[in-house]
Amino acid sequence: MTYKELDRETLKKILKEEYKKYNNYKNLELSYDMTRGKPCKLQLDLSNEMESRKYLQGFHSISDQEVRNYGVLDGIPEAKKLMSEMLGVGTDEIVVGGNSSLNLMYDMLVRFMLFGTGTEGCKPWSKEEKIKWICPVPGYDRHFLITEKLGFELIAVPLLGDGPDMDMIKDLVKDPAVKGMWMIPKYSNPTGEVYSDAKIRELASMETAANDFRILCDDAYTVHFLRKGPAKQLNVLEACKEAGNPDRVFLFGSTSKVTFPGAGISAVCGSEKNIRFLLSYLTVQTICYDKINQLRHARFLGDYNGIIAHMKKHAEIILPKFEAVDKILTRELEGLGILSWTKPDGGYFISINTLPGCASAVVAKAKECGVKFTPAGSTFPYKKDPQDSNIRIAPTLPPIQELEAAIKILCVCVKICSIEKLLEA
Amino acid sequence: MTYKELDRETLKKILKEEYKKYNNYKNLELSYDMTRGKPCKLQLDLSNEMESRKYLQGFHSISDQEVRNYGVLDGIPEAKKLMSEMLGVGTDEIVVGGNSSLNLMYDMLVRFMLFGTGTEGCKPWSKEEKIKWICPVPGYDRHFLITEKLGFELIAVPLLGDGPDMDMIKDLVKDPAVKGMWMIPKYSNPTGEVYSDAKIRELASMETAANDFRILCDDAYTVHFLRKGPAKQLNVLEACKEAGNPDRVFLFGSTSKVTFPGAGISAVCGSEKNIRFLLSYLTVQTICYDKINQLRHARFLGDYNGIIAHMKKHAEIILPKFEAVDKILTRELEGLGILSWTKPDGGYFISINTLPGCASAVVAKAKECGVKFTPAGSTFPYKKDPQDSNIRIAPTLPPIQELEAAIKILCVCVKICSIEKLLEA
Repeated sequence: MTYKELDRETLKKILKEEYKKYNNYKNLELSYDMTRGKPCKLQLDLSNEMESRKYLQGFHSISDQEVRNYGVLDGIPEAKKLMSEMLGVGTDEIVVGGNSSLNLMYDMLVRFMLFGTGTEGCKPWSKEEKIKWICPVPGYDRHFLITEKLGFELIAVPLLGDGPDMDMIKDLVKDPAVKGMWMIPKYSNPTGEVYSDAKIRELASMETAANDFRILCDDAYTVHFLRKGPAKQLNVLEACKEAGNPDRVFLFGSTSKVTFPGAGISAVCGSEKNIRFLLSYLTVQTICYDKINQLRHARFLGDYNGIIAHMKKHAEIILPKFEAVDKILTRELEGLGILSWTKPDGGYFISINTLPGCASAVVAKAKECGVKFTPAGSTFPYKKDPQDSNIRIAPTLPPIQELEAAIKILCVCVKICSIEKLLEA
Repeated sequence: MTYKELDRETLKKILKEEYKKYNNYKNLELSYDMTRGKPCKLQLDLSNEMESRKYLQGFHSISDQEVRNYGVLDGIPEAKKLMSEMLGVGTDEIVVGGNSSLNLMYDMLVRFMLFGTGTEGCKPWSKEEKIKWICPVPGYDRHFLITEKLGFELIAVPLLGDGPDMDMIKDLVKDPAVKGMWMIPKYSNPTGEVYSDAKIRELASMETAANDFRILCDDAYTVHFLRKGPAKQLNVLEACKEAGNPDRVFLFGSTSKVTFPGAGISAVCGSEKNIRFLLSYLTVQTICYDKINQLRHARFLGDYNGIIAHMKKHAEIILPKFEAVDKILTRELEGLGILSWTKPDGGYFISINTLPGCASAVVAKAKECGVKFTPAGSTFPYKKDPQDSNIRIAPTLPPIQELEAAIKILCVCVKICSIEKLLEA
């Protein structure tokens, strides 16, 4: 029987029991942080070897470029090759950047604001009266924050399990003020969903009123599988080229969760025209990115197969954590009708949905008990989840015992808050 | 006797002789590149040891921060300490960045454009009708390029050997559209001059019509001495605080020419209010800079004394090159009244001035002979030297024999072009 089907007396009885458990946990004075999607120490250790001097032998790239000196704005050839294999593009469709793909996205939008997109007849976006931007939800708070700070009007579009609601998007893009959208095509943060090829084709081919409509496609988890290997997926740049809209998308990726977050290498991909556009402004902004780190990465990871072999080691470490969360949620909450959760094949998150109006209360309740989850609402534009239902669970960082304890506490909190909500009604 | 004092016949005779030399050089089919202020291989080798794993032992900063994972936007404490000692500021007045201080400057101006400076009552600069910007000349082309691309009107102000023409600057800043200036306070690129403390005080204390007037102070060569040690100089941030204008300046620096250009660490300094302003936007732009590289640098260089000891080794390698250039210029051209040149105590350049109207011709003539110098005009806004007189010589990169050959050819070209100019008159 679901909680909704139970009578008030039964619910009150359960509530009392759950509060007993809750208070026991509270007395333990725990302090767990479940907020960030960070790799754990064991994962980081997988790449320690990369810092060996042997990977820098000679300090020259295969095209004989000195990596210790200025120059080579678009990246050394072996790094371009590595990242283009990872992201499924040509080596003339990529620029290898510094330690942050998020920074590349920020820079790109700033470029659009100050200089435009390079599309004929279109103004710099800062000269437009209003810019509207599509945000598939639930999504990544740092994406939403960038577009919010730039003054865009953010429009939430629900993700449906295989990508966003395309009817809604196709309707929205009839408005010329709608200039683009965020997109995490594979193992999306936090839902873990993989965009279907059909939806990717629709996004690539749909008519948009804005000629300079741009998809900022953050392929952050493209090789971050948990089970058999990365999901096969139509490449977004390829789809845009096929649809005759080659300049519609910029594709981003990084090794942040392959090697070291904050000390990886990033990349931005686009049509050859878009890459020329990008370089013409990048050359004003900086002299070059860190080529020593590019060389280190290219030699340590080798090629696509090297990346996949490395990601398999990550999966071996973190899959048990994802399974532990699923096991506890199933044991404690299945069939009660008070929580749904995702069972992703990759990425860094489990996305849970409480009864409407309960997410903030659950997070607050858990915090009181010493367990910090990502604030409810964070996965929505302006940090406002209209349903107050979604919470992002990041299982990778904590040790498994800590994770299990935190999820057990979460379950108690979900039960308590759900019952309190049902009793209110 | 100077060339101007010689009669036409004598000049023609000299011209004929110099053309003979010129053609001999031309027949050698040389290919020398003197364009970029890059360290040479021997200089780069001084820092190879930094890439040893021993400097990363433990992968944690002194405040126990994991350097391999996300976080710590403002830099790890030991990197902040190192860079604040180098730049003469407090550890609460600094943010340690990535591999490029030029990128930090670009970002700062972009921030001013889109969001303003944080000064009460002032608009984002993109909302202003016109932004004017003071450019001390000759100066650094990459500075001028940034402000040009952002659409600022660039105003050249001559450097006088101890900093810019302050009368001119004090007059210019009466215009509220004049929002700031570039500044390389020590061993300026390319003149090598050191701003006097008096001029620094004037810049810090002068009244400006714009409340959000900002000095972008690129202290790129602060420890880059050639002889006895770095010149003592009043710290610009200190001067601004003393003058009651603490927010007037942002101070930039990097280890690009200490360790590896393109793979060093950078820093931006400012008043505590300015640092808060900066971090409030930086947190939208990126998650963190490369802390592994910060740790590597902090442990390899150690402290200020470690930096100075390291820079002494650089000086030992490059001082002979500066002296070789000076020796040849003196031997070939002293007393002829056709070329003046600087004798810097630090930095990366020798700045030469030909007779008015000769610089482009000299560079073209040398190029024809297989020696590439930085294009004439590059040291001025919009690449236009109104006198067509200044050329930047970068002695550090080429091997000394190559450098000497290039400078001998330069001397022949200067003689030829000067005589041709004098004969025109």
